[in-house]
Amino acid sequence: MLYQTIDILGTVAFAISGVLVAMEKRLDLFGVLIIAFVTAIGGGTLRDLLIGNTPVVWMRDLTYVVTIFIAVVFAIIFVKQLKYLRKSLFLFDTIGIGLYTMIGVEKGLEAELLPIMCIFLGTMTACFGGVIRDMLCNEIPIIFRRKEIYATTCIVGGASYFLFVQLPIKEGYAYIAAIVVVITLRLLAVKFDIRLPSVYEKKTG
Amino acid sequence: MLYQTIDILGTVAFAISGVLVAMEKRLDLFGVLIIAFVTAIGGGTLRDLLIGNTPVVWMRDLTYVVTIFIAVVFAIIFVKQLKYLRKSLFLFDTIGIGLYTMIGVEKGLEAELLPIMCIFLGTMTACFGGVIRDMLCNEIPIIFRRKEIYATTCIVGGASYFLFVQLPIKEGYAYIAAIVVVITLRLLAVKFDIRLPSVYEKKTG
Amino acid sequence: MLYQTIDILGTVAFAISGVLVAMEKRLDLFGVLIIAFVTAIGGGTLRDLLIGNTPVVWMRDLTYVVTIFIAVVFAIIFVKQLKYLRKSLFLFDTIGIGLYTMIGVEKGLEAELLPIMCIFLGTMTACFGGVIRDMLCNEIPIIFRRKEIYATTCIVGGASYFLFVQLPIKEGYAYIAAIVVVITLRLLAVKFDIRLPSVYEKKTG
Repeated sequence: MLYQTIDILGTVAFAISGVLVAMEKRLDLFGVLIIAFVTAIGGGTLRDLLIGNTPVVWMRDLTYVVTIFIAVVFAIIFVKQLKYLRKSLFLFDTIGIGLYTMIGVEKGLEAELLPIMCIFLGTMTACFGGVIRDMLCNEIPIIFRRKEIYATTCIVGGASYFLFVQLPIKEGYAYIAAIVVVITLRLLAVKFDIRLPSVYEKKTG
Repeated sequence: MLYQTIDILGTVAFAISGVLVAMEKRLDLFGVLIIAFVTAIGGGTLRDLLIGNTPVVWMRDLTYVVTIFIAVVFAIIFVKQLKYLRKSLFLFDTIGIGLYTMIGVEKGLEAELLPIMCIFLGTMTACFGGVIRDMLCNEIPIIFRRKEIYATTCIVGGASYFLFVQLPIKEGYAYIAAIVVVITLRLLAVKFDIRLPSVYEKKTG
Repeated sequence: MLYQTIDILGTVAFAISGVLVAMEKRLDLFGVLIIAFVTAIGGGTLRDLLIGNTPVVWMRDLTYVVTIFIAVVFAIIFVKQLKYLRKSLFLFDTIGIGLYTMIGVEKGLEAELLPIMCIFLGTMTACFGGVIRDMLCNEIPIIFRRKEIYATTCIVGGASYFLFVQLPIKEGYAYIAAIVVVITLRLLAVKFDIRLPSVYEKKTG
């Protein structure tokens, strides 16, 4: 129940972020819908394709399509008010990437992949909906550019799960602990403006 | 036989539309070929990937590759004359999206998906070759921008099929009726310039 | 052993080419990593998806991930010195597309596809990592634009394999001969600046 609620909140946050990007690009109604869908389910779809888990998950479960559709209608109507929800949306998004990361890790374990591949799949589930969104909107994906700790929190969180399961605790707790790691790291990174190290030399003057 | 002829005409129309976009971008011969292929078979490929119907359809049937190749050679040679064929190409394209929509719906039914997912797959089959074409050509997909009734005709046509099969008529007739719905809607939409409602507020001055 | 060494050298060359493109676009560390990965394994991934060979190959074999990771670290540290390695990198890349082409052809044969589809898959394996790299970097794919003989060498090399296996020689020799054809053609094409014919009329006047 809690799990499902989080999943829906995450989907809503991703869909709304899609609507906002699409409307900034002045796309039409169909474009806004598709971008919202892709943002919310693109990462999981890519994951399912890579491991051969087809038909992909949202095709077998109406929840996602209905949730996204309602989120899009809501976002289009209340687009002006959304700025007052900025903090809530950030929180949903952060909880969402935590959960999505672990859903991806779990799918990798089910497919009997190595831990590092599971972490890949988790990060992909959480982050690549946004990557496809940006490709469709003709932008270089934002998570490749900003030096923000975003994907990195998913990687660290996914890796932490494989540490936690070594401990003498129930697997369910390890799962939840890893989600908490992602969320905490992201909140700390934003609060203290922690960034990726630059791969470029500084220009000296 | 009729079915196959329509399929080929649709493929030709899509391939030629790919050639025209690619040549506008001044791509080289290889680029023109790939864009034509992607436009014609990209939607069906994406559909087959999502439902796990692999190897994807055009890999198991030479018809598509040969048809597209001939269409590309023809289009490159007669590129100047193509403007006189504009009406025929529009008609082929319109018949093509009608047929492609229902091919997608059928594949969804075979995979035992919910009607709404079948309609998704139909729309994807008809429209997403063009989406991938535009992504490769570094454009925001045209069907996300123009407010034209294009994808919408596929959605309505696909949905109409699920109404028609409730009627006491043969399934084959419902199939054909749905194709006619797509084609008719598209022709009417273009003739009367029917467009999607705007999701943006009008600027007042 | 030789086969594996070539495979790794090719992967390194592709990954480094990804790093260089990503750094030119000033992507952050995560972006550079992902672009390097995509360049090296994108073509093979697309191939595996189209024929339904999942989980895709690099998910089941750590070699690729480790190789690419080391190549990226190396390339970021020695980015300035890489220009002195330009010739070696070109050679690795050329050997790489030769091998990748034949790996793709082989996978097509395993999936019992027609020769022309196998040649498609070979060309895709060798060239489409670069295509996805360019899409992510918001560029029209370079191999669609330059009129360079690049993909064409893969097509000719793949086709030559199906000629060689008709000869009374061992299949392994046909395989190697086809790789040599790709490499030789590419070296000759660069040396003598052989290009694709233009599909555009020359401007006169």
